[in-house]
Amino acid sequence: MLRRRRVYAKKAIPLTTGTGLELMSTLPMIMSRRLRPSPFEQRVIENGASAFTLYNKMTLPLVYESYEKEYEHLCEHVQIWDVACERQVEIVGPDALQLVELITPRDISSCAIGQCKYAPLCDENGGIINDPIILRLAEDRFWLSIADSDVNLWVKGIAYGRGFDVKVFEPDVSPLAIQGPKADDLMADVVGEHTRDIRFFWFIDETIVGTPVKIARSGWSGKGGFEVYLQDAAKGNDLWDIFWEAGQKYNLKPGAPNLIERIETGLKSYGQDMTIENNPFEASMDNYIDLDKKAEFMSRDALMQVAETGPAKRLVNIVIDGEELALMRTDWRVLDEAGEQVGTVTSRTYSPHMRANIGMAMVKPSFASPGTVVMVDADGDICRATVRDAKWQ
Amino acid sequence: MLRRRRVYAKKAIPLTTGTGLELMSTLPMIMSRRLRPSPFEQRVIENGASAFTLYNKMTLPLVYESYEKEYEHLCEHVQIWDVACERQVEIVGPDALQLVELITPRDISSCAIGQCKYAPLCDENGGIINDPIILRLAEDRFWLSIADSDVNLWVKGIAYGRGFDVKVFEPDVSPLAIQGPKADDLMADVVGEHTRDIRFFWFIDETIVGTPVKIARSGWSGKGGFEVYLQDAAKGNDLWDIFWEAGQKYNLKPGAPNLIERIETGLKSYGQDMTIENNPFEASMDNYIDLDKKAEFMSRDALMQVAETGPAKRLVNIVIDGEELALMRTDWRVLDEAGEQVGTVTSRTYSPHMRANIGMAMVKPSFASPGTVVMVDADGDICRATVRDAKWQ
Repeated sequence: MLRRRRVYAKKAIPLTTGTGLELMSTLPMIMSRRLRPSPFEQRVIENGASAFTLYNKMTLPLVYESYEKEYEHLCEHVQIWDVACERQVEIVGPDALQLVELITPRDISSCAIGQCKYAPLCDENGGIINDPIILRLAEDRFWLSIADSDVNLWVKGIAYGRGFDVKVFEPDVSPLAIQGPKADDLMADVVGEHTRDIRFFWFIDETIVGTPVKIARSGWSGKGGFEVYLQDAAKGNDLWDIFWEAGQKYNLKPGAPNLIERIETGLKSYGQDMTIENNPFEASMDNYIDLDKKAEFMSRDALMQVAETGPAKRLVNIVIDGEELALMRTDWRVLDEAGEQVGTVTSRTYSPHMRANIGMAMVKPSFASPGTVVMVDADGDICRATVRDAKWQ
Repeated sequence: MLRRRRVYAKKAIPLTTGTGLELMSTLPMIMSRRLRPSPFEQRVIENGASAFTLYNKMTLPLVYESYEKEYEHLCEHVQIWDVACERQVEIVGPDALQLVELITPRDISSCAIGQCKYAPLCDENGGIINDPIILRLAEDRFWLSIADSDVNLWVKGIAYGRGFDVKVFEPDVSPLAIQGPKADDLMADVVGEHTRDIRFFWFIDETIVGTPVKIARSGWSGKGGFEVYLQDAAKGNDLWDIFWEAGQKYNLKPGAPNLIERIETGLKSYGQDMTIENNPFEASMDNYIDLDKKAEFMSRDALMQVAETGPAKRLVNIVIDGEELALMRTDWRVLDEAGEQVGTVTSRTYSPHMRANIGMAMVKPSFASPGTVVMVDADGDICRATVRDAKWQ
């Protein structure tokens, strides 16, 4: 019943280019000074990274051997990830809190110094601009640790337009992630036993390899660990090396934000699962919206309206039946039984652990309940699929 | 005297990855829905594009066979270029002109409907945000045809902050360029003889393959030609094909914005030759600054200050002695005779036509006069170099 039309190579990393008649899953990119190298890129290359993406105009290694192998390793050991592309937008000055409150529907007044908050940034239409982790460094100083969109320019524009007394800029800060179940042991060896006490989404200031860093218990996986915010790009190799050497006894390997793990865990990718065209209710980010917060925020009217009428779509988990599907670059349509489009698949992968094609889809609310059966048009393959809840039930 | 240390492969497109100990000149990039395909990508792949870059999160093919071959062909014939990554920011509404004036030091009041103006966009510090071509579509409607930075978010922020009555968004518009000395003949065949009368930096409205387009006499080369603004991404193949077929008699080939040609011609690349850290005087864009323009513009105070004290740096042409140099991803330092840094090389290539390494450099004003001799530290190669004027004299 499933018509198999392989538009892309079956495996994630074909690295074939320039010969096909269809969109390629991997393309060779000429680097230049316009595209910034990560401070960790030399180590990443030495350790055999085989494919990258560009994220905030910086290289982000995605794969060394394969998604599958790195997924299995991440679940059991500890990995070192170059996530320097998670750039920071620093907002500092007397009006910093007022400005941060203005750009997100989440209540930031309760964010303590040393604490992190995940928050959607929303424009006056309720559209999502980004979904950073906000770090409060001081009463009047924040870092927005951003996903892939130029928050710096947007916030600069707002600050100028409103006449806020703040400075907004991108500081020299490059996160290195230590992720996986053995991350605590490794961090304790490198920095000290006290790092075991860092609470989830809090950070501390430390000095490693003679350079100041912030260490947060956070990261783009569900397997636990830390993000180390390097504040001097020239120290990239040194910071990598100290974790690398100490990590050998824990079977440390290089890794990356892992497509399989992040979909299983339900981590949304901005630009993929939601864009400026979506509001945070559509993106199922209800937990991060405080419509009653005291501070002014620019998306209030638009989001109040959505709350009243209900969102036009909802982002849900989805399991697609059949054998392992090809990679996805285009919009795969979600169809009802009559073949009418009721949504779009936004991310997908094959989960070896669940032995299924899993993904996320933005669907009409009437198709968003767990258990709902739909069809997916996977570049011509029409596949049966089922909506699932956050725990894949 | 020149120590030869080849950090990169000598030719522009080594396509070797994952094995070296240094920064790579080309990296394999996994594509995803976060990175947008161009509407022309299928034709680009079919025609053998061998290397790309990402520009405004969209693929931009840079090379088919080689920079050198495509350069030679561009000088004599006509080429078709996928430049869909030149995204548009549409500003429409009663306050559109006021907003456009606010963000650039160039006088836009004199821009007629149907006319284009190249203009730096500058923030309140005078920093360059982008250098688009501004198209005036109507009294109250503009497109900014942008270089690689998210002008949309910046302008949205300003418009919100100032409470302007405008809409700011990215429309479905993808330019296709027809460049080279035979572009006029080809355009006349496809659209009509009247296209020969389109003046430089003016545009007309037409319908091709049943879809509305704007045709401007503009483009990112000094060899003449047009940019065709497609307004329906689904018509990418059709638009490509009609020029492709009609172009065969003119020896049409696929091409791209060409590194050699653009440096020879003096076309600056935003993000490479100048960034938000530079003001337009530093970028030698004096011709596009009207400090006396009547309208309010946000960079006035900062730029008046620079005009008074003189810029701290100037972007100049430079010829570097010696044999063909390696590719450049890092900052190559410009040194004086004592070995002190007096600037940075921002772009470079080997020009077969000039038989020299040519480039641009941002140097201290006292080193900006044509004929000034300096040294360049090209990743360890110390080379003699000479500052040149806009005509390479």
